[in-house]
Amino acid sequence: MGLNPALGIRVGRLPAGPGNLITDVPGLKVGHHTLAEGPVQTGVTVLLPGPDNCFTRKLPAAVTVFNGFGKSLGLMQIEELGQLETPIALTNTLSVGAAWTALCRHALSQNPGICLTTGTVNPVVFECNDGYLNDIRGLHIKEEHVLSALKNASQTFEEGSLGAGRGMRCHGLKGGIGSSSRVLDIAGHPYALGALVLANHGSLSDLTVAGRHIGPRAEELLNSGWTSGYEQQQDKGSVIVVLATDAPLLPHQLKRIAARIPLGIGIVGGRGENGSGDIFIAFSTGNPAAFQREDFTKVDELSNDMINPLFDATVQATEEAIINAMVAAETMEGINGNKAYA
Amino acid sequence: MGLNPALGIRVGRLPAGPGNLITDVPGLKVGHHTLAEGPVQTGVTVLLPGPDNCFTRKLPAAVTVFNGFGKSLGLMQIEELGQLETPIALTNTLSVGAAWTALCRHALSQNPGICLTTGTVNPVVFECNDGYLNDIRGLHIKEEHVLSALKNASQTFEEGSLGAGRGMRCHGLKGGIGSSSRVLDIAGHPYALGALVLANHGSLSDLTVAGRHIGPRAEELLNSGWTSGYEQQQDKGSVIVVLATDAPLLPHQLKRIAARIPLGIGIVGGRGENGSGDIFIAFSTGNPAAFQREDFTKVDELSNDMINPLFDATVQATEEAIINAMVAAETMEGINGNKAYA
Amino acid sequence: MGLNPALGIRVGRLPAGPGNLITDVPGLKVGHHTLAEGPVQTGVTVLLPGPDNCFTRKLPAAVTVFNGFGKSLGLMQIEELGQLETPIALTNTLSVGAAWTALCRHALSQNPGICLTTGTVNPVVFECNDGYLNDIRGLHIKEEHVLSALKNASQTFEEGSLGAGRGMRCHGLKGGIGSSSRVLDIAGHPYALGALVLANHGSLSDLTVAGRHIGPRAEELLNSGWTSGYEQQQDKGSVIVVLATDAPLLPHQLKRIAARIPLGIGIVGGRGENGSGDIFIAFSTGNPAAFQREDFTKVDELSNDMINPLFDATVQATEEAIINAMVAAETMEGINGNKAYA
Amino acid sequence: MGLNPALGIRVGRLPAGPGNLITDVPGLKVGHHTLAEGPVQTGVTVLLPGPDNCFTRKLPAAVTVFNGFGKSLGLMQIEELGQLETPIALTNTLSVGAAWTALCRHALSQNPGICLTTGTVNPVVFECNDGYLNDIRGLHIKEEHVLSALKNASQTFEEGSLGAGRGMRCHGLKGGIGSSSRVLDIAGHPYALGALVLANHGSLSDLTVAGRHIGPRAEELLNSGWTSGYEQQQDKGSVIVVLATDAPLLPHQLKRIAARIPLGIGIVGGRGENGSGDIFIAFSTGNPAAFQREDFTKVDELSNDMINPLFDATVQATEEAIINAMVAAETMEGINGNKAYA
Repeated sequence: MGLNPALGIRVGRLPAGPGNLITDVPGLKVGHHTLAEGPVQTGVTVLLPGPDNCFTRKLPAAVTVFNGFGKSLGLMQIEELGQLETPIALTNTLSVGAAWTALCRHALSQNPGICLTTGTVNPVVFECNDGYLNDIRGLHIKEEHVLSALKNASQTFEEGSLGAGRGMRCHGLKGGIGSSSRVLDIAGHPYALGALVLANHGSLSDLTVAGRHIGPRAEELLNSGWTSGYEQQQDKGSVIVVLATDAPLLPHQLKRIAARIPLGIGIVGGRGENGSGDIFIAFSTGNPAAFQREDFTKVDELSNDMINPLFDATVQATEEAIINAMVAAETMEGINGNKAYA
Repeated sequence: MGLNPALGIRVGRLPAGPGNLITDVPGLKVGHHTLAEGPVQTGVTVLLPGPDNCFTRKLPAAVTVFNGFGKSLGLMQIEELGQLETPIALTNTLSVGAAWTALCRHALSQNPGICLTTGTVNPVVFECNDGYLNDIRGLHIKEEHVLSALKNASQTFEEGSLGAGRGMRCHGLKGGIGSSSRVLDIAGHPYALGALVLANHGSLSDLTVAGRHIGPRAEELLNSGWTSGYEQQQDKGSVIVVLATDAPLLPHQLKRIAARIPLGIGIVGGRGENGSGDIFIAFSTGNPAAFQREDFTKVDELSNDMINPLFDATVQATEEAIINAMVAAETMEGINGNKAYA
Repeated sequence: MGLNPALGIRVGRLPAGPGNLITDVPGLKVGHHTLAEGPVQTGVTVLLPGPDNCFTRKLPAAVTVFNGFGKSLGLMQIEELGQLETPIALTNTLSVGAAWTALCRHALSQNPGICLTTGTVNPVVFECNDGYLNDIRGLHIKEEHVLSALKNASQTFEEGSLGAGRGMRCHGLKGGIGSSSRVLDIAGHPYALGALVLANHGSLSDLTVAGRHIGPRAEELLNSGWTSGYEQQQDKGSVIVVLATDAPLLPHQLKRIAARIPLGIGIVGGRGENGSGDIFIAFSTGNPAAFQREDFTKVDELSNDMINPLFDATVQATEEAIINAMVAAETMEGINGNKAYA
Repeated sequence: MGLNPALGIRVGRLPAGPGNLITDVPGLKVGHHTLAEGPVQTGVTVLLPGPDNCFTRKLPAAVTVFNGFGKSLGLMQIEELGQLETPIALTNTLSVGAAWTALCRHALSQNPGICLTTGTVNPVVFECNDGYLNDIRGLHIKEEHVLSALKNASQTFEEGSLGAGRGMRCHGLKGGIGSSSRVLDIAGHPYALGALVLANHGSLSDLTVAGRHIGPRAEELLNSGWTSGYEQQQDKGSVIVVLATDAPLLPHQLKRIAARIPLGIGIVGGRGENGSGDIFIAFSTGNPAAFQREDFTKVDELSNDMINPLFDATVQATEEAIINAMVAAETMEGINGNKAYA
């Protein structure tokens, strides 16, 4: 979990939280379900944003679409209402329909009033294309896999080639699930901010770790046959970033947070390639009263003048979570003998 | 099809096309699949935007989200790339996951290269909540119903309480699928513009037909017991509008077209209520060469100075399609004995 | 002020406030400065949103651009921060630079710390093109005219052909400044919502007043020579709407309010013509504590479930304010003998 | 002009154009007017995008607002119409009103039909806050300074502390005007892409040059008294980036280009600080026929599948232009004895 201190890599100046995971934000849980049999190398990862029943305790949230060449579902309503009301699922591109239905059924089972006495429910699903290593056209993710990931969710979780990260590649190497956190102080209050990434983007030649542009050297080390396979594939990636914080923010402030995520991606070498669906969500657990009453609510608002440390934490946690996804991943062989190196 | 001339209602000043349907735009087809057994009163409607294989002949397109309290899928990529690459499906709110997967499989079956030699595919699904008349929580729409609607698609189609329109209500009365078209002339060239609506929105008290504010009178005519049922329900609606034209437009111009749709909705009495997901798409079949080559393409662009007739046609076709949805619908009894009057 | 009851026109179902003006929202003031000499027929109108020094008591605000073919200034920062921090000026298109500088100097004079100990200041200026009646290319509005309008501001103000409305036309008739208000009740709390419009848009043939499509009849009454002058001019208009309420709303909710304004414009016959810059702002005075502290603030948030009455009030106040602008205006002759009829 | 090869800094892998300036895109010119007397340390820089009369040869363009805490003018209409129709002016924050009026008068003098036989004109003005070194509250920029910069414009121009860059600081050091270019090949066609930046943003501690995080070391070298001055000032900056290319792009593609600019800013260490108005524009000279006819035009469109080299060039040119702004700048003393070190 987190960068191995022995590797001597240090990203950013704010300290990480105790686990260096998004779950350093209190109340969050992450779970995986992995499929790894022959050509089927894929999975689902879910993030539970805090309450057992998200639908009855909606959280302030915002999304940013950096490159909208993607199939993520549920963003439009968050943009309109500023509310997250289900767990977040991450999976492969062609399985978003199944994941949507699974989250929908899960919410229906918890809330008998949905569509009857209350409004409808808005599941949130993110995706990347794992078709280089996985038989993505087989649509292997089923509703029960999402429910299994929900059951598996806990405060500690593994990073790398599991869950939705199973078949992903990043900067030409094996990618997957990565996470990181930062702790900071605003006006005497301690806060945590954490990132969870599904990293499946980037070119090896652009890879930069902790300021060192190691991509070209890494390219030389790998044989050219492999490299040409990588070039062909490079534009079918994506990167998903989920950001959470317990600082009390309103939706339009969370939108500002999410907008800074590309800065962290760019530092590692991401370029928002044409086919890379780069989609981000940020939510706050720091306004428990928000959206709780049917008439008027008192909500907490951080002054914009105090928001810079959260911007810094966002860039640093994003950068490190991407690197962690690559560090935690293992060399893997997938469909058609395609390989991704760690 | 279209307003019954005998009713003496005339909307707008541009003439309608021969069918007064969105399929007056050459090449378009619409198909329904309806489920109507006891509490299951729902369905799917699909629009085929022209070519047999949309994925290999992408069309310029744009979306406008007037009220994003909805679950429509596939809008983000259209916003980014300006391309429509699948048929459009309309169904009930909780069935969008199933419809997404059905359109996905349909595209995979037509295009063996998807996710292998070409990019991924972006299905487009719109929805309204038919939970007042339909057992929406049963998730009764399956993939085969979408495929059936695709097979049923033709240039002529019925409006009213069938397909996705089966369980919908509009302005307190029975709603559903409506359509209308306008023909116009720009610089000597004849063009068609058509609207397809899934009308499930609005309050009876606001209903205005062809300039006559008939809502309050209609309310008096209905018994108060029914009206209170209606009030309780009013905020769970939505209205979806699909606009097509063969005028040669670019994506940023189609966005301007789609943005005028609320003007037509407002004229009939729609108010963009809090819970009404009001989502619109506009696409053009008039640039057949667009997105066809792998390097450079010559595309046709209409001058913005000539665009006003298309704005007028948009407002008029939207207004009439909503009215047509109500005129074509029949009084219906659904789940829990809930009734919607025509 | 407001529709003459003797005319028998009644718009909408919510009651108007005591003045039927935007200043029914407590604390607001509006002032005009009019230039009316020969070919110079223009002016400035300013709205003071409440506090004497807006910069030190910023208000939650949001903008909606319905048709961005316009030169309004200051919207971008409101979109980012959700804050209004100066009075709002309305004037003719080519005078927005002068008005911006005037509001800037006014803020500098009130706040010696701007650009030194605090941030910069973001003046907000809206405009319409009065070039049919006014020598707009002469850039006749100077900074002192804006300061004069600020000094003239009061709770009661006149509508019609004065201030920024001096040279405006609406639906082919004389347009200008109009206002209206609605009072409503949310969960037992009384609130006001008011609209101030600068109406310079629309075709006579589309004009619809209180549900009656009177445009075609009005066209017949006017001689054809005049009508052709009107046709030539029709696409150079615009409509600006400023909405204020004392209901406690956050920026993303005010954005939803502002988005409903086109519904009111469409009901009167506006079509968002290509050249019509249709720009809207909504702000709330109901969160006096917002943005007041340097660290954390408690702000009030209305539940989205209670927001519909504000949507209704928005549509109704917008519709009536546009009609009021036309009713209050007088027949006028401007530059080159161009006439606009009341 | 460009990085001194002797410094041994090399940014990116695509080659620079002959001048390593935005004017490597054929037809472009840049001019400065500088005020440098005592506390008045400011200026104007203008970019002429090609044709002598921009209004009669509008260019496809798009804007991206990364952080909208700024006062740039004219972006809304570009967003709506996708057209650039005046030169672009850059100046200090409080002088945007004067610059707007100057560009307006310039367009009126070239085009007697504006507001009479054609539409209105949309000047584009960008700004940063130079209040640390300049008496910004004095509003010293007048219309004649903008006209002077227009007259001075040529294909070769100086970078650093002149024109709008006179009073700017970047990453705690002296900033200002910087430029860079890249040449690339798409499907056998050679294209140029150039960046012009007004760099007034960033913290010294984050400064990273060509992958080396030199900020912390630089901080040590400067005395702490200066550093505290810098800390106080850090959040009042901004960065403006103007991108030009002769590749044939449509507005929605230029929007994708402009969206990648933050990746280049992040690599140098920019963080989109709260008060930093980070605003970008991209335009194409490669569609000379676009917007030229009153009815239909054939325009060239590059396939999205070929767009990645332009994304790479954007990130690289932005990164280098920011560094060039700092390299070209000289140590300067401004108002109140404030100093900025090169």
